[in-house]
Amino acid sequence: MKTIDEQTAEKHKAKMAKRKAVQDAEVAGKTVEKGLLIVNTGPGKGKTTAAFGLALRMIGYGRRVGVVQFVKGAWHTGEKDAFAAFGDRVVWHTMGEGFTWETQDIKRDVAAAEAAWAKAAELLVDPSISLVVLDELNIALRYDYLDLDMVVSALKNRREGLHVVVTGRNAKPALIEAADLVTEMGAVKHHFSAGVKAQQGIEF
Amino acid sequence: MKTIDEQTAEKHKAKMAKRKAVQDAEVAGKTVEKGLLIVNTGPGKGKTTAAFGLALRMIGYGRRVGVVQFVKGAWHTGEKDAFAAFGDRVVWHTMGEGFTWETQDIKRDVAAAEAAWAKAAELLVDPSISLVVLDELNIALRYDYLDLDMVVSALKNRREGLHVVVTGRNAKPALIEAADLVTEMGAVKHHFSAGVKAQQGIEF
Repeated sequence: MKTIDEQTAEKHKAKMAKRKAVQDAEVAGKTVEKGLLIVNTGPGKGKTTAAFGLALRMIGYGRRVGVVQFVKGAWHTGEKDAFAAFGDRVVWHTMGEGFTWETQDIKRDVAAAEAAWAKAAELLVDPSISLVVLDELNIALRYDYLDLDMVVSALKNRREGLHVVVTGRNAKPALIEAADLVTEMGAVKHHFSAGVKAQQGIEF
Repeated sequence: MKTIDEQTAEKHKAKMAKRKAVQDAEVAGKTVEKGLLIVNTGPGKGKTTAAFGLALRMIGYGRRVGVVQFVKGAWHTGEKDAFAAFGDRVVWHTMGEGFTWETQDIKRDVAAAEAAWAKAAELLVDPSISLVVLDELNIALRYDYLDLDMVVSALKNRREGLHVVVTGRNAKPALIEAADLVTEMGAVKHHFSAGVKAQQGIEF
């Protein structure tokens, strides 16, 4: 007679064998390979860090990545220092002038966004780059610092095989429409609400 | 007489000055520094990559991070190779045996989860580590491969100042309750639904 443990193990095995068949069929049904337009948006934490995690994954295969930061500028970040370890496998442009409520100067904000976009445009046509991260581009689009049609059209017409990640809250519907993968980071619970300050290694 | 451009710039400046006052007050109100228990959950992409982006940020400050992978095992990932560049600043334990529908062996899954937790427990008490990533721990908890109370209690009682990130879908309510920061990655749009396969540098 079989023990209860053996019966449980057998039931589990049968269930998982069925599940594997479903999974295998799903995987077999996915055959397209393409450069993805990825958007990380929403109010929660993880938009930029997920983009950098992806960059790291790509670097692990010996590929090159490009990063343009549209808002971050003045302050020091841990990620920038860490990516420096990869030498010329990372092309990094910190082009922001800080938050728009810090500059309080719309002309300066627009000029910074345009300069950042010029760097982005260079990376988009650089054949040595496999992934481009456009960090906080959504902020520049939200405040109309850049022309939405121009940006979306450039991203849609990126060269074949190129992956692009756009981050920032309030992604524009036209960008979401053009994207292959859109993740909304939802803040279920946030430590800022409990009075915790921005900390080294966590927020910057 | 002022031009329309000048009027717009002045309005913008006034609005942003107000906004800065609000932001400054908010920042001033946040004074707590603490090691955070962070949970990245939900069906969307970015749970693990955001954890690794955070690890990278921490490494950028010369701190050490520990990673335990509860599910990933058999297959090669770019992130593991990339983190190797940081030498002993990263302690990496790939302890998984693959998806539960691949092993089809509940005893083996439980043994793997227990072995992974033993490594996690070591990292939690290692004073040289600033951040511990418990990748896909939620999967082990969901299938009851580990005792939920034991895990949540160990995470709640982690040493002061230690940051921990737990990833994986279907985070248990008790873990969410114990956490300081919970992000739900929502899949607004996913390329798998459009027949795109898992690609190097993107999914692994």
